[in-house]
Amino acid sequence: MKKLINSPEAVVDEMLDGMVAAYPERLRRLDDIEVLVRADGPVSGKVGIVSGGGSGHEPTHAGFIGDGMLDGAAAGEVFTSPTADQLNEMIQACDSGEGVLCVVKNYEGDVMNFETAGEMAEMEDADVRQVVVNDDVAVEDSLYTSGRRGVAGTIFVHKVAGAKAAEGADLDEVERVANKMIDNVATMGVALTSCVTPDKGEPTFDLPEDEIELGIGIHGEPGTERVDMMSADEITDHLTEKVLEDLDLDEGQEIITMVNGMGGTPQSELFILNRRLQEIVDDHDLEAWDAWVGDYMTSLDMMGASITIAAVDEELKELLTATADTPGLTV
Amino acid sequence: MKKLINSPEAVVDEMLDGMVAAYPERLRRLDDIEVLVRADGPVSGKVGIVSGGGSGHEPTHAGFIGDGMLDGAAAGEVFTSPTADQLNEMIQACDSGEGVLCVVKNYEGDVMNFETAGEMAEMEDADVRQVVVNDDVAVEDSLYTSGRRGVAGTIFVHKVAGAKAAEGADLDEVERVANKMIDNVATMGVALTSCVTPDKGEPTFDLPEDEIELGIGIHGEPGTERVDMMSADEITDHLTEKVLEDLDLDEGQEIITMVNGMGGTPQSELFILNRRLQEIVDDHDLEAWDAWVGDYMTSLDMMGASITIAAVDEELKELLTATADTPGLTV
Repeated sequence: MKKLINSPEAVVDEMLDGMVAAYPERLRRLDDIEVLVRADGPVSGKVGIVSGGGSGHEPTHAGFIGDGMLDGAAAGEVFTSPTADQLNEMIQACDSGEGVLCVVKNYEGDVMNFETAGEMAEMEDADVRQVVVNDDVAVEDSLYTSGRRGVAGTIFVHKVAGAKAAEGADLDEVERVANKMIDNVATMGVALTSCVTPDKGEPTFDLPEDEIELGIGIHGEPGTERVDMMSADEITDHLTEKVLEDLDLDEGQEIITMVNGMGGTPQSELFILNRRLQEIVDDHDLEAWDAWVGDYMTSLDMMGASITIAAVDEELKELLTATADTPGLTV
Repeated sequence: MKKLINSPEAVVDEMLDGMVAAYPERLRRLDDIEVLVRADGPVSGKVGIVSGGGSGHEPTHAGFIGDGMLDGAAAGEVFTSPTADQLNEMIQACDSGEGVLCVVKNYEGDVMNFETAGEMAEMEDADVRQVVVNDDVAVEDSLYTSGRRGVAGTIFVHKVAGAKAAEGADLDEVERVANKMIDNVATMGVALTSCVTPDKGEPTFDLPEDEIELGIGIHGEPGTERVDMMSADEITDHLTEKVLEDLDLDEGQEIITMVNGMGGTPQSELFILNRRLQEIVDDHDLEAWDAWVGDYMTSLDMMGASITIAAVDEELKELLTATADTPGLTV
């Protein structure tokens, strides 16, 4: 498979430099490591919000650095956790003295390395907390993960934690709203094709021309079932019902939805899914407060999509609509 | 090839409904035709800015409807021009009485149907002008086109024309700045893979695993040459040199650049191209004033990218940084 790269080993390094070259007034790279931070950070008097994980999910996470969202993002190699040293340096670079909240997707390597990094940073007197996002309803326990995986719902957590911190809230309050969003969000995805990692250069798994994989992860991990190809409406029905079953919402509940592209999916197809999604939301007598459609949490060039739904209250709505000024999201 | 669709015939209709379902406060669909307009339009006292063309290039064009950019966008079938009737209805729906500027990509069907539509609308007393974007430096005359094709540079034209109209400028002034941008912008693209149209369901052209097509169009039209696969830097060098040759800029000239993904390209790869692009810009002693990286003018699921460069002066810079509030671009 062809890719627009120079070498598999240089992908992450050159991608980060290319991001800084695009947004030199917004992003700064820490010396010699694969971490981007706000060019104007750390912001005095503000709790730092950081995230990170394997690369290949762009614009996640570095694309969400900026006013109202993240202060820093650590990029591991493709689908590989950042190291504890790397995370520690990021945490310290993003600490203005008010403490740092780490938004961690639930993968064993990420959770372990963020924990170690937090302990290292605390030895330097930083106040560090972790919240772990586990929104993927497809599977309990899987390759790389104990419990549910963290996927596209992570972006809502970045948004509310970032907005709360931008208000000047303290670390307790920022952690509280992040966990509130985590408790109220659920996601499920589908793959039409496998992604192709730069080092392997061929599909991670084989998916025949007439089959799709439901409940897929974002690193090509197995899903819940492989089924015959279905229509966009049938796929949307399946994903949405699983998400709604998990959330078990009352009639009239206000929600925010996200149709997330996996990287290789044309935007037209995401809107076709959104059309059906909003019909289902109406059929369930839920109140569609807001709808996001786009590529937020990708899996390289995978064709497919995920559907995320979160219950929102007045506090979450205010935080979701607060100003954000990042390369990947402007509100 | 698998797609997230219900049927090839329903793609455009359902995509438009899905867009309105995502942004009901921003977008409105005209009754029974494939045209989206601003929900709050036509805006009193403002020149209307409209565009349109075949579908398959999303977020182009409807994704750029909103304050500071477009008032309306007509969607033809995939890679097929909208009809003159459709365009006429759009033009009239977007005319507040101050006239309408049509931003047309240079393809024979688009140009012809916009001209006919303009004449129809003028019979109803609308003042209608066309500007034709022809930024693709790859080929003179090609399948579907006399002269150079209109590609990703069109988005810069939407931006400056939309910003000028939002200032309250008259139709002459809006047309002038649109043509100024057109005169100063150039683009060239590359394809690693063919796109797959919904009705055909298989690649439009065959591109072997070890070859790429330089100078590709956005509908799978032939490019200038088919060459062996190259590195990202070599591809960026080739595209950028062709664009700079065409523009023939003086040292020190301020420019805006765009690395545009063709739909199936991971964002990481676009940033790898941008890294090299900015090095070349420096090597030519040009002043990188701003850089855009993302999917703006796609070709369904095609893997590939285009590079656009435009010379900017104070007036264009002001218009490019003016407020825009659309689903596809927020400034």
